[in-house]
Amino acid sequence: MTEKKPHVAVIGGGLVGALNACFLAKRNFKVDVYERRDDIRKAEHVKGRSINLALSTRGRTALRMVGLEEEVLKNGIPMHARMIHGVDGSRNPILYGKEDQYIMSVDRRRLNEVLLSAAEDNPNVTCYFEHKVVRCDFTTGEVEFINKEGKKVQNKVDLIVGNDGAFSAVRKEMMRATLLDFQQEYIPHGYMELTIPPSPKDEFQMEVNYLHIWPRNEYMMIALPNLDKSFTCTLFMPFDIFASIKTEEDLMRFFRDKFPDAIPLMGEETLKQIYMSSKPLPMVSIKCSPYHVKDKGVIMGDAAHAMVPFYGQGMNAGFEDCIVLDEMLDKYNNDFAKALPAYSEFRKVDDHAICDLAMYNYVEMRKSVNSKLFLMRKKLDNLLFTIFPSSWVPLYTMVAFTRTRYHECIEKRKHQDEILNKVLYIGGVILFGSLAVSVVQILNQNGVSIHSLKDHFTQLWEAYF
Amino acid sequence: MTEKKPHVAVIGGGLVGALNACFLAKRNFKVDVYERRDDIRKAEHVKGRSINLALSTRGRTALRMVGLEEEVLKNGIPMHARMIHGVDGSRNPILYGKEDQYIMSVDRRRLNEVLLSAAEDNPNVTCYFEHKVVRCDFTTGEVEFINKEGKKVQNKVDLIVGNDGAFSAVRKEMMRATLLDFQQEYIPHGYMELTIPPSPKDEFQMEVNYLHIWPRNEYMMIALPNLDKSFTCTLFMPFDIFASIKTEEDLMRFFRDKFPDAIPLMGEETLKQIYMSSKPLPMVSIKCSPYHVKDKGVIMGDAAHAMVPFYGQGMNAGFEDCIVLDEMLDKYNNDFAKALPAYSEFRKVDDHAICDLAMYNYVEMRKSVNSKLFLMRKKLDNLLFTIFPSSWVPLYTMVAFTRTRYHECIEKRKHQDEILNKVLYIGGVILFGSLAVSVVQILNQNGVSIHSLKDHFTQLWEAYF
Repeated sequence: MTEKKPHVAVIGGGLVGALNACFLAKRNFKVDVYERRDDIRKAEHVKGRSINLALSTRGRTALRMVGLEEEVLKNGIPMHARMIHGVDGSRNPILYGKEDQYIMSVDRRRLNEVLLSAAEDNPNVTCYFEHKVVRCDFTTGEVEFINKEGKKVQNKVDLIVGNDGAFSAVRKEMMRATLLDFQQEYIPHGYMELTIPPSPKDEFQMEVNYLHIWPRNEYMMIALPNLDKSFTCTLFMPFDIFASIKTEEDLMRFFRDKFPDAIPLMGEETLKQIYMSSKPLPMVSIKCSPYHVKDKGVIMGDAAHAMVPFYGQGMNAGFEDCIVLDEMLDKYNNDFAKALPAYSEFRKVDDHAICDLAMYNYVEMRKSVNSKLFLMRKKLDNLLFTIFPSSWVPLYTMVAFTRTRYHECIEKRKHQDEILNKVLYIGGVILFGSLAVSVVQILNQNGVSIHSLKDHFTQLWEAYF
Repeated sequence: MTEKKPHVAVIGGGLVGALNACFLAKRNFKVDVYERRDDIRKAEHVKGRSINLALSTRGRTALRMVGLEEEVLKNGIPMHARMIHGVDGSRNPILYGKEDQYIMSVDRRRLNEVLLSAAEDNPNVTCYFEHKVVRCDFTTGEVEFINKEGKKVQNKVDLIVGNDGAFSAVRKEMMRATLLDFQQEYIPHGYMELTIPPSPKDEFQMEVNYLHIWPRNEYMMIALPNLDKSFTCTLFMPFDIFASIKTEEDLMRFFRDKFPDAIPLMGEETLKQIYMSSKPLPMVSIKCSPYHVKDKGVIMGDAAHAMVPFYGQGMNAGFEDCIVLDEMLDKYNNDFAKALPAYSEFRKVDDHAICDLAMYNYVEMRKSVNSKLFLMRKKLDNLLFTIFPSSWVPLYTMVAFTRTRYHECIEKRKHQDEILNKVLYIGGVILFGSLAVSVVQILNQNGVSIHSLKDHFTQLWEAYF
């Protein structure tokens, strides 16, 4: 006797949607993917969203599980360290972890194309483009779309999966169907993408295997390498600063002041041309709970937890969502009525934790990478990591290079902070003690006895009190 | 030369919308009120939403400013105190403030009718019912509605005011037009309205001038008096408890256990009939920021800040919003480009504060009114209020009986708490000191000298160490 294949509608054919289709098809589900926009593989130009992304362990693990890690990696560029650019033009690297630990710069569009093609290679998957969700019924499983001809089309499925990004239509429909706690917060910063082209000799103009950072407190610029030997730069600034830079003169004055070394790399004319024709884009942090409705609907990726981009974990967290759902479907033998609430309950704390970490890094990354204390802490962290490789894992390493649950990363870091504070305190006491002993020794060597000092202090004391 | 009257669309003809229309019409604006539902004055039965409300100083002040206080008060019932019902049937009053301070139980529907009629009495106001907003353009001021015939109709105005409640359509449109921080949180409790009818002799069955409370920690019931000598009871419980009470037997067992004195008042059959045919309703807390878009849109009342009902300030806060907008329009001479951001900035902190206070009382009201410590604190508060009437105003009094800005109420309460803690600490030290002195005196009177005691303790000490 053959059971009927579960039929799933994956809403959204972006990174998480396409990967999720691979996961669900592998379970032998019948999967229909509905994407609002046209097929990215046919598009001449893709607008909005960042050009490249930092792929780390969680994302790689998910890709490996659907057999795509190799293919994605061969088109990526390893980044072993941050490269900090000072205002004076200095460049200082800070390793991400150990020598062999690196994150990968990957091209968003290429990755999306690989994922979509892999999904479609599976006979269980059908992709529909230019289909916009207008209604979901989480009791019957009916979904209604408007297609590219402007006509209404319907489908009826066993499960509606919302992988449709931060402004998810599926989530909006869920909010009509269930009591959904929801929170969205915009940060005062916007971002704009600029570019550093290859050199005239078609070479990278900066050290290639790094994520370049220009930390300037209120402002920050980063640059990731591309396969074509260019770098994509992202400039983060408060919207009101963007608005205050109105003319090409304003722009050059600002760049000469804050990012002088980037001007010759970008080329003054190109910089002016791109800046003047672009608008800064907003960044939003979104949390909600629960992620499911009954046994018929679930949201994942940015639809469930959009985050500010400062931990480089948005895509990685979304990819890990696919692993977690897959594990829950295993555990509950594809029983959606059990797997969906279990997924929601299990994953919520971790998604909320990475949203918080990203928001924390929003401040940390601009400010701290500039500070001596931050560098000392990084060095101390890495030293302890070398001595105790299994028990003292730095926060960034846990987040980027392990699959330790995000909320546990935060807990472990708190625990480390407590220990470090104690160590620093004890260290301080020992240091102060040694100092005192040295002083006494020096005094002794100079013929001053400790007893005469004591008498002296006693006399002083008695004279005053 | 006559200036053109500003033309305003008030979306929502509920309590805040109708009052706001009165305020704006008084400024000589041309006001169109659009209500999604039918005219409440013609409806036979109004479903959803609570039947009666507690009107306090902020709401009364707003009504006074548009000349409606008298008319509303004559149909209200003063409540001077809470009446606490124990499980044993005991009833104990706790005053709201001083003897002459009371809140008013008013009928929601009647109040809405009074406000709508008052608005329409002004030749500047036109009301449109069964008009549902489908689109707002905050650049042009165009608003599109679907009317009762299902046809699209448009209007173009200088200002779109969203007074359309917690699930505001105007707010949704604002979220498409501007970067709006937004948060909604459902609490685990639901509510259900029950009733205590008049006695056979057509009299109130309980003390009339009270807000009756049955605090039971996880559960709570309250009752407000109506002009027809009935009481409207509201039962608050976690949804899962509501769900666990499935049969009439479950219900009666539960009521006999938790609210035994209410059964004969409600009548067993009526209680069963209402409970079995009703569904518990959810409660949501909503915060957002900012409240305006450009010089064309603003949201107020529940549309901007829905709160849980446990401070009885939802309507009062919404009415006070109307005062604050009126003041800002005065201050900036009807210049919307200045008045709207100023309103948003000024009012946000207070609305957020009252949402927080309401959420705090969600716990406080169920638990604390049961506790001796809470009662002692109330008495101490009231004592200090009597001694220092201008400087020691209890929190509830500030919120319900003054127009002290909500966020200042919280700050003042924190300050009071600090003082009280210090006083209690000093009091404790003095108490302990006096106690010690008394002990020594008693010992002396019994021929035991303090020195022999000291010797005794010294011997003990030395024997052990």
